[in-house]
Amino acid sequence: MDMLNERIVKDGVCIGTEIVKVDSFLNHQIDVELLDKLGKKFSEIFSDVQVDKILTVEASGIAVACMTARHFGNPPVVFAKKTVPSTMNDDFFCSEVRSFTKGTVSMVAVSKKYLNKGENILIIDDFLAHGEAASGMADLLKQAGCKVAGIGAVIGKRFQGGEKRLKEAGYNVKLLSNIEKIIDGKITFVL
Amino acid sequence: MDMLNERIVKDGVCIGTEIVKVDSFLNHQIDVELLDKLGKKFSEIFSDVQVDKILTVEASGIAVACMTARHFGNPPVVFAKKTVPSTMNDDFFCSEVRSFTKGTVSMVAVSKKYLNKGENILIIDDFLAHGEAASGMADLLKQAGCKVAGIGAVIGKRFQGGEKRLKEAGYNVKLLSNIEKIIDGKITFVL
Repeated sequence: MDMLNERIVKDGVCIGTEIVKVDSFLNHQIDVELLDKLGKKFSEIFSDVQVDKILTVEASGIAVACMTARHFGNPPVVFAKKTVPSTMNDDFFCSEVRSFTKGTVSMVAVSKKYLNKGENILIIDDFLAHGEAASGMADLLKQAGCKVAGIGAVIGKRFQGGEKRLKEAGYNVKLLSNIEKIIDGKITFVL
Repeated sequence: MDMLNERIVKDGVCIGTEIVKVDSFLNHQIDVELLDKLGKKFSEIFSDVQVDKILTVEASGIAVACMTARHFGNPPVVFAKKTVPSTMNDDFFCSEVRSFTKGTVSMVAVSKKYLNKGENILIIDDFLAHGEAASGMADLLKQAGCKVAGIGAVIGKRFQGGEKRLKEAGYNVKLLSNIEKIIDGKITFVL
């Protein structure tokens, strides 16, 4: 999406060769009108799959998932939580997610009530980097007996390999913007 | 809102006399169509105030804030974060928020870049109970020199006193549903 790439270049803040901060429109301050356009685009590129629900992860995936749902006829949006009361583990599907940036291992969890066997679930998130969050969500869906209808992210970072790994694992991965490399503050996008 | 009250009675799960869980449509699984109606209602009851931005807090306020922004002509939505890298404190407005339910004190924080002096900011959240989160957000706005255009929450719990305290402090507080009491699993709403 040219419009999105232009916005990333205009408002994104590059840190080193691996990070571009898009706090000003995607994951701290949110440009709702832009997200509505991104949601429409997701509905176009995933028009051939059945979407019974949309799954994302808190916090920064929620806005884009909701704005995407509107263009799929308002299926429920479920957001995975990153912390679960330890006494409630039996009620949740849980999966571990490694963060390469932070060097930590955390959890994603969804109440068993909101993922039902046989449902077609579209995974939506803000970023796809190493693919750990998306893999974690796909694992939750596997545990629940759901089908992964597709994995969509607003911004991919191809150089971190998540896209390749998820495609090799058989998933239908779509990115609205895909970054090839970041060098000296200059972003090169995948053509 | 009768429609909302009916939904709370139908799908809410009461725990004791103080908690009603609305995970199935508001803060784990999200009914986007319902939230769109709630957002429209907020735009009606706050139609007399200027709204330059909407402020909420992660994670469960994000969806309703975004769906509300659509009915105000898409002003930016800013969501306060609950954790801030300790090295970045100088870049954030921070305020402490006590959780009576969890017995903890946590933080809400917004980057100084996204709150500008003189802006009129509408605070939107899913719940208003003791009013601690809303007070914390109002404090962030005070630090930034912004004006609190209003405080709106989907569900108020009058018996926990936040609404009264915030009104006494001079804020324009509006609730789409307001719970008077919860006894033996039966919810009584404020008329």
